[in-house]
Amino acid sequence: MSKIASIMTDYFEDVEYTEPVKAYKESGHDVINIGLQGGQTVKGKREQTPVEIHKSVTDVRPEDFDALLIPGGFSPDLLRGHEAPVAFVKEFMSSGKPVFAICHGAQLLITADVIRNRKVTGYKSIIQDIKNAGADFQDSEVVVDGNLVSSRNPGDIPAFIRESMKLLS
Amino acid sequence: MSKIASIMTDYFEDVEYTEPVKAYKESGHDVINIGLQGGQTVKGKREQTPVEIHKSVTDVRPEDFDALLIPGGFSPDLLRGHEAPVAFVKEFMSSGKPVFAICHGAQLLITADVIRNRKVTGYKSIIQDIKNAGADFQDSEVVVDGNLVSSRNPGDIPAFIRESMKLLS
Repeated sequence: MSKIASIMTDYFEDVEYTEPVKAYKESGHDVINIGLQGGQTVKGKREQTPVEIHKSVTDVRPEDFDALLIPGGFSPDLLRGHEAPVAFVKEFMSSGKPVFAICHGAQLLITADVIRNRKVTGYKSIIQDIKNAGADFQDSEVVVDGNLVSSRNPGDIPAFIRESMKLLS
Repeated sequence: MSKIASIMTDYFEDVEYTEPVKAYKESGHDVINIGLQGGQTVKGKREQTPVEIHKSVTDVRPEDFDALLIPGGFSPDLLRGHEAPVAFVKEFMSSGKPVFAICHGAQLLITADVIRNRKVTGYKSIIQDIKNAGADFQDSEVVVDGNLVSSRNPGDIPAFIRESMKLLS
């Protein structure tokens, strides 16, 4: 079973964390929440879902995990204002392990500069940013390009879960 | 005296609206709040400052104003998910009239594709997006490039007000 890191902070889009994580756990996978500070409780944007951050991103390494989930909302933008989460995502992407980014999740990939020439989708407000980052933007409910699975918004969650689960062993 | 449009919606960075607007009004300028729906009350991200949207962006034209203010926070990202605010900003920029963007304000300029080869600054989380949009990013408290005045964050507000006021007649 896989050990998945969910990288997140306040204002995450609640269902983009709760629904994939529920599905992953029901299939026997483990999810560790990583963020700016271990022990901190962060809250979702819409329903204020409280989520405990198990580990600071500075206390973990990509080797500790099998896959990475990046929920959307305003959380990715808050994370990419700090160096450590960006460095972690960059290193994780170069490891070749599965990365699952939904909605605004691609913002972290843009700042990490890891989507050049990759097929990617994301929330409508960041389409221009995705294109400017050198990616091939695709307007689909889910886009799979090698290790990278991306979706546009909460409506795409079923397809996002379906395709991300295929990359978990 | 100038008629300034402030384009905004929920989650704007409170002081990036309240402080410049206070300064503009004290100098005799007029500020009209435009957004997604006229008559709507939007709220700031930090202090929940309530602000009435006077006009929908679909009911105004750049010709109605002398300058445009884009406060930051998450408001610019929410606005650029809609076509009308992006089209308005694009048209406003091509009019050559003054545009004042602070913090995440540059996100609207990126989606409107109007900062190619322009000197621009913005909030640290969007630096890569500004560069990818073809702009010359500058890490300064205020950057003036022709009609365009930009600043990085709330700490830059005094410089932002000082330089934007110079472009108001």
